[in-house]
Amino acid sequence: MRMYDLIDKKKKGQALSKDEITFMVEGYTQGMIPDYQMSALLMAVYFRGMNEEETLALTLAMAESGEQLDLSEIRGIKVDKHSTGGVGDKTTLVLAPMVSALGIPVAKMSGRGLGHTGGTIDKLESIQGFNTSISKNDFIHNVNTIGLAIAGQTANLAPADKKLYALRDVTATVDNLSLIASSIMSKKIASGADGIVLDVKTGTGAFMKDEQQSFELASEMVKIGDGLGRETYAVISDMNQPLGRHIGNALEVKEAIETLRGEGPDDLLELCVSLGSYMLLAAKRVEAVEEGRRLLLDTIKSGQALEQLKKLVEAQGGEAKAIDHTDLLPKASIIERIKSPISGYINNIMTEEIGVAAMLLGGGRETKESVIDPAVGIVLEKRLGDKVEKGETLAVIHANDEEKLLLAKQHYLSAYQIAQDQTKPIQLIKGFVSADGIIRH
Amino acid sequence: MRMYDLIDKKKKGQALSKDEITFMVEGYTQGMIPDYQMSALLMAVYFRGMNEEETLALTLAMAESGEQLDLSEIRGIKVDKHSTGGVGDKTTLVLAPMVSALGIPVAKMSGRGLGHTGGTIDKLESIQGFNTSISKNDFIHNVNTIGLAIAGQTANLAPADKKLYALRDVTATVDNLSLIASSIMSKKIASGADGIVLDVKTGTGAFMKDEQQSFELASEMVKIGDGLGRETYAVISDMNQPLGRHIGNALEVKEAIETLRGEGPDDLLELCVSLGSYMLLAAKRVEAVEEGRRLLLDTIKSGQALEQLKKLVEAQGGEAKAIDHTDLLPKASIIERIKSPISGYINNIMTEEIGVAAMLLGGGRETKESVIDPAVGIVLEKRLGDKVEKGETLAVIHANDEEKLLLAKQHYLSAYQIAQDQTKPIQLIKGFVSADGIIRH
Repeated sequence: MRMYDLIDKKKKGQALSKDEITFMVEGYTQGMIPDYQMSALLMAVYFRGMNEEETLALTLAMAESGEQLDLSEIRGIKVDKHSTGGVGDKTTLVLAPMVSALGIPVAKMSGRGLGHTGGTIDKLESIQGFNTSISKNDFIHNVNTIGLAIAGQTANLAPADKKLYALRDVTATVDNLSLIASSIMSKKIASGADGIVLDVKTGTGAFMKDEQQSFELASEMVKIGDGLGRETYAVISDMNQPLGRHIGNALEVKEAIETLRGEGPDDLLELCVSLGSYMLLAAKRVEAVEEGRRLLLDTIKSGQALEQLKKLVEAQGGEAKAIDHTDLLPKASIIERIKSPISGYINNIMTEEIGVAAMLLGGGRETKESVIDPAVGIVLEKRLGDKVEKGETLAVIHANDEEKLLLAKQHYLSAYQIAQDQTKPIQLIKGFVSADGIIRH
Repeated sequence: MRMYDLIDKKKKGQALSKDEITFMVEGYTQGMIPDYQMSALLMAVYFRGMNEEETLALTLAMAESGEQLDLSEIRGIKVDKHSTGGVGDKTTLVLAPMVSALGIPVAKMSGRGLGHTGGTIDKLESIQGFNTSISKNDFIHNVNTIGLAIAGQTANLAPADKKLYALRDVTATVDNLSLIASSIMSKKIASGADGIVLDVKTGTGAFMKDEQQSFELASEMVKIGDGLGRETYAVISDMNQPLGRHIGNALEVKEAIETLRGEGPDDLLELCVSLGSYMLLAAKRVEAVEEGRRLLLDTIKSGQALEQLKKLVEAQGGEAKAIDHTDLLPKASIIERIKSPISGYINNIMTEEIGVAAMLLGGGRETKESVIDPAVGIVLEKRLGDKVEKGETLAVIHANDEEKLLLAKQHYLSAYQIAQDQTKPIQLIKGFVSADGIIRH
């Protein structure tokens, strides 16, 4: 088999066989196939696409390119949740405790943030002492005893995807649905869960700005998951404004805790309940999502979900009393209010710009080497559709550096559009995708 | 300017500006732009194409990437001839003497052969002592005194094209008209001629098998030549069988000499007269090709053209008496006749296979490192449309090695198709392309 022939075949619009895709992914990971041949093939894939069998084969080959987690020592059906990334997305911090409170084992591998989206691991590390690099044994032991564990992705998870993504990133070949879907799913498959629930974000703060495309991506990923024997669901959720009101690592932990106390923002709770009900469905804990929603809301009322978060923090060495006393979380030295320059209604939020503003404060990574400041961030006081008077506070910035504050402020202000007419309310959940089809709201 | 943005732009179907193309070609030649970005861009070009301005800019940037010949010291209008490559193509050996006999300076840079097509330089080197690496001063001096010189291409001619072609060759991005045309024309432009006549081969022995595509390539190249201020013509000629009857370096020199004596095959003479008449037109020596044809045929009758070949060989250190006594040229030790296994008419010749057969004998290069045996080759006794009886000789193989002979024989026989019905005669000249348009025969 020669890589040249595979490029030529794809260029001519023919499908590659499973063997050919495996040869290609293995050869590339091992350095036998050079970057310049792979990038030519990726560009041909951009123009010619990949069919379902090809996409499955690619996902599997990437999943098998490195370490694959064996979660068989964990009792019960393991269900993983994945978000395509957004601003202010602290879903895992709320959802994992809720679901585990219902007896579903949560063995979660999470990533760090890069660019304008934050990572769960970074957020958890804002709790003093929290160790996200626990051993595999501790990870499994914790899930079996307290019901949940959250750790950083091992470096050797789907290395083929890592190498391919880095190449796509510099050759303008990121934006192909099959490639995006197989990249995400390869890591989920290698992470060993039995079921997968996907949170596909759509809007100004999401990787996928277009709703139609978000549904297509969701369908593609659900097909891959089901094709590889994992019960998979996708929730398509709005990212035209940050999720909840807090952006920044410690600030997001605080909002997650408030939500688990029943005092959080509606949208965050609603998304967690939506995603969670599909996790319960995949775990065979309930037969219908409505039942799941009820059970999940009960874990908040009863305080069981909050209890699970405390157990998680304790088990991974974090300061558990910060859960009850959130003023123990890192705090920024400068608190500055951003005032509205005019009166009107919040009409549009360039959400990605708000993510960038938080990153510029030090809350996110511009490059892989950036060191994160857990204390900084932004708290929104006005969201889409809200009425605002001139001089009223739009948001509060938490900063540790005057210069960064200035930069972030500029970004923040440019992200808001204020109009004179009231806009129609945002719909948080756009729809669902399962093997049975698509439900649009 | 970032290469990433140029890839993305081309991927989206937008045209690149002249500055962007220059940036890209310079950056790539200097090693600032990596192969993997260039191959992604090339694949995007395969799908999106390049418009006329882009193709011109690419050609010029490649021509300017290395040494550019300054032929201003040569008196008169310099006209170059280029063939896209075929089997048995000894046109230059006949045409250069004919044209120079009419007072047109011929300053020809030629390549070596690779694969199934031979190179003029290799053919000339089968004449003992012939030096194809003469200095630039000698080259110009010879043209100014005897009227012609033929030398090997300098290594630094259009290095960007060399590097790009090598990359296209391993990334399945060769077959794009703009890229093919700009690759050929960049070297012609850098070679410094005022006019260019292209021999675009079409058929089973040509790079372009399809006639329609050959016309398109010819048009593309004529547009580039004219766009860059060189009067350019293209002749589209048949390559569904070898040109003439001799294939192999010394054998082709012999056939060229016979043609200059007025004893050569009709097709070779006809092609030389066609190409030559356009060279005379480009050189403003005649006002119509008909006049050129007459003058060129006269150079054969008068013996002037043959005289020019002798002068060329003498001036470049070759054994000139081999021109009058062709038995002084290298001779093979084994002469074997290939007999027809059945009776019928020659219906089809897989010409490329015949080129490969000659290469396998040692007459061509499988790799750049191969050493050529000037003596070996094939002499065709039957050509398309000829009647053949069972047991009659199809061709005579000249070999120096029994094993290679066997291999070549197998290739040769598999290349012939013999049918019971007579086929219609082959048309040698398919048409012409100039800035004024296309003439099809």
